[in-house]
Amino acid sequence: MDYAKESLRLHRQWKGKLTSTVKMKIATRDDLSLAYTPGVAQPCLEIQKDIDQSYELTGRGNCVAVITDGTAVLGLGDIGPEAGMPVMEGKCVLFKEFGGIDAIPLCIRSKDSDEIVNIIAALAGSFGGINLEDIAAPRCFEIEAKLKERCDIPVFHDDQHGTAIVVAAALINAVKVCGKEMGQLKIVINGAGSAGIAIAQLLARMEFGDIVLCDRFGILDGDDSRLNEAQRAMAKATNRHQQRGTLRDAIRQADVFIGVSAPNAVDGEMISSMADHAIVFPMANPTPEIMPDEAKQAGAYIVGTGRSDYPNQINNVLAFPGIFRGALDVRASDINEAMEIAAAKALASLVSDEERSVDYIIPSALNRDVARVIAKAVGEAAIATNVARIR
Amino acid sequence: MDYAKESLRLHRQWKGKLTSTVKMKIATRDDLSLAYTPGVAQPCLEIQKDIDQSYELTGRGNCVAVITDGTAVLGLGDIGPEAGMPVMEGKCVLFKEFGGIDAIPLCIRSKDSDEIVNIIAALAGSFGGINLEDIAAPRCFEIEAKLKERCDIPVFHDDQHGTAIVVAAALINAVKVCGKEMGQLKIVINGAGSAGIAIAQLLARMEFGDIVLCDRFGILDGDDSRLNEAQRAMAKATNRHQQRGTLRDAIRQADVFIGVSAPNAVDGEMISSMADHAIVFPMANPTPEIMPDEAKQAGAYIVGTGRSDYPNQINNVLAFPGIFRGALDVRASDINEAMEIAAAKALASLVSDEERSVDYIIPSALNRDVARVIAKAVGEAAIATNVARIR
Repeated sequence: MDYAKESLRLHRQWKGKLTSTVKMKIATRDDLSLAYTPGVAQPCLEIQKDIDQSYELTGRGNCVAVITDGTAVLGLGDIGPEAGMPVMEGKCVLFKEFGGIDAIPLCIRSKDSDEIVNIIAALAGSFGGINLEDIAAPRCFEIEAKLKERCDIPVFHDDQHGTAIVVAAALINAVKVCGKEMGQLKIVINGAGSAGIAIAQLLARMEFGDIVLCDRFGILDGDDSRLNEAQRAMAKATNRHQQRGTLRDAIRQADVFIGVSAPNAVDGEMISSMADHAIVFPMANPTPEIMPDEAKQAGAYIVGTGRSDYPNQINNVLAFPGIFRGALDVRASDINEAMEIAAAKALASLVSDEERSVDYIIPSALNRDVARVIAKAVGEAAIATNVARIR
Repeated sequence: MDYAKESLRLHRQWKGKLTSTVKMKIATRDDLSLAYTPGVAQPCLEIQKDIDQSYELTGRGNCVAVITDGTAVLGLGDIGPEAGMPVMEGKCVLFKEFGGIDAIPLCIRSKDSDEIVNIIAALAGSFGGINLEDIAAPRCFEIEAKLKERCDIPVFHDDQHGTAIVVAAALINAVKVCGKEMGQLKIVINGAGSAGIAIAQLLARMEFGDIVLCDRFGILDGDDSRLNEAQRAMAKATNRHQQRGTLRDAIRQADVFIGVSAPNAVDGEMISSMADHAIVFPMANPTPEIMPDEAKQAGAYIVGTGRSDYPNQINNVLAFPGIFRGALDVRASDINEAMEIAAAKALASLVSDEERSVDYIIPSALNRDVARVIAKAVGEAAIATNVARIR
C-alpha cells in the first residue's frame, strides 16, 4: 500500500481523527439545568473549596494534553505547529485506543522555551497530564525540566522517555535471548538528540553496562564546546573508558548498537566488527541506519527497528498509553524514573520465557494487554515513590 | 428538583461531560500506518506547504476552544480556573449538541490580560475559533480586542456578544408585540459589566432608540473617574438627553428595562413608572432583578428572564452554537458586528407572525432548528463583509 497517498486521502475524508461525544442526553429543560445552569454552579463551588475535586467533577482526571511546537515532527524536522497537528491527533487516537484516555492535541506558535513553559503551566489545571511531543532538542530538555518543576501534574516528553522505555524493554529480553550478562554490556548509541540522550540516561540508570554515545561527529566528547548542556552531561556520565574516535571505532566489539540517527548511518562492516551475538536496534524511521536483512547478513544476532514490516518493532505506542493510564489512575503528580523503569520491566515481562526468541523480544504494537499491565506497574511505582495522590 | 444536589451527584458520576471518540478503527498494522506513522507524514507535509490545509486535514475547522480564567463564572464571581471547568464543559456540551462543533474546555491560571492574550494567540493554530467565557470586566474587553487583532480565527466573548444577540432578538419581537416604534424606544440597561456594555453597543448599533446605562451608583456619567474605559465610552455614546440620577430616575417612562445586574435590583414601583406596554427583561440569574409575576402585577406587558421556568427564556445557548457553526462553515476570520446583527435577526425570525405573543418572543432553548438558521445568516453576513475564506 502507498501509505502516503492513502493516508492523505483518509485525512481529507476524516477532517480530524477524533470527535467529541456528549455523555448525557440533552432533551429537556431539566437536562440543560443539570449539565449547565443553574445546576452546574454546585460542582463549581465544590472545586472552589477543594481544587482536587476537579478530578472528581470534571474530565480532567482522564485527560492528557498532547502538545508540540512543531519543531521536530517525526523525521520531518521544523515544519511548524499547524503541520504537526496530524501527528498530535494520531497520538491522541492511540491514547484513546490503547489507554482509554481522552487526549487533546494542542500546537503552540512559539519557539521560545520560557514562553512555551509559561503557556503549558498556565493550562495545567485543565488536564491530568501533559505529553510533550516532537519538540526539538536541546529545547525539549529545558522545557520538560521547567515544567516538571512548575506543574502538579505529570509532564512526559514521549520522544525522550517513551522511546527509552521501549528500547530498555526490548533490550531486557534481547539480553536474555543472547545469554549476555547484564551490567557487562558495551552499548553504542548513535544520535545524541532527545531520544539518544534519554535512552543513555535510562540504560545507565538500569545498569545495563558501559554506554558510548555518538553523534555525526563521532564519540561525544564532554569537553567539546559544540555540545549542548544535556549532551555534555551525558558524555561525562557515560563512556567509562573515555574512548575517543568515530562511530566506527566505538562500535567495534560492542554488544549493542542503538540507532536514533539517520538512514544508512551504519554499514555491514561496522556490524561485523561487533561482539558475538550482537544486538542491533537501527531505529531511524522510516529508513533505518541499516536494513534488518543486511544487519543479519553482517552477523547481527537480534535486530529490532521502528518498522512494522520486520520483527521486533520498537514502537512508542507500547509505552505512553499505559504509562499515562497508570499515572492518571493513581493521580500521580509526576512520572519519575522509578515509574519509567517499572514500565520497561512490565513491558518486557509481557514476552514470556517460552515465547522469547530472536524474532520476539517485544510485544506487538497492537497487543491490547500491554497498556493495562504497564499501567498497573507504573501506578505501583508511583505509590512506592510517594508521587501518587490516590491509591 | 433540587438542581444543585442532583447536578453535583451527576457530575460525580460523569467525571467529565464529554469524551473523545476515535473516528477510524485501529485493528491492524495498516490502520496504525495510515492514522499514524509513516502515513501521517504526508498530511503534515501538505500543511507545511499551505497552512490552510490544516482545515482540510485536521479537526481544526470544526473545533472551538472554550476558554476561561475563572474570574467571573456564572454569578459566582472569581472562583478560580479549575472551578470554572464544569461550566466550560457544559458550554462544550451545548456546542456539540446544538452546533455539531467539537469544543475543547480550557482554563487558564493567570489573571494578567497580556499573558492570557499571549497564551490564547499561541494556541490559535489548534482551533477554528475561540469562545471566551466568564472573564471579568473590564479585562474581558481588552483581552477580546487584542485577540481579535492578533488571531486569524474568530474570537467571541459569549458573555458579551452572545447575551447581546439574544436580547436583541427578543427585543425585535417584543417591540412588534407591543406595537412600539423601533428607533423611538427609551431603553434602560442596569448593569455595566461585560453583558450590559455589549447589549448597549449592539442595541445602539441596531438603532432601537435611546439607551441609558446604569450601574449600582445610578446612571453612568461619562465624566465619572470610577468608570472603566469601556463604560466611559458607552456612557458618552448613549443617553441622548444626558439624563443624570438613579436607576429609579432613569426607568421612569422607559419602554424597555434590561437587567444584567443583581437579584431584586428593581421593585414594583419602578416598573409601574415605566411607559405603557413596558418590556421588562430582568435577567440576573438565578434570581432576577424582579420576579416575573411581580413585574406583571406592576404593569409590565412583556417579561423575559434567564429562567427556564417562566416564558421567554433569554438564554445564550440560542446564539453561540449557530454563530460559531456559521463562522466555521465559511471559515470566517472574525465574528463581526454584521454577523452578530444577522444572528439576532435570524433568531427573531424563528418566531413567526402567527406565533408571536406576549409569552412567546423567543424560541425555546431546546429548538434544534435555531442553530441551523442562525448559521446560515451568519455565514452569509461573513461573506458579505469579506471575512469568509470559503463559501
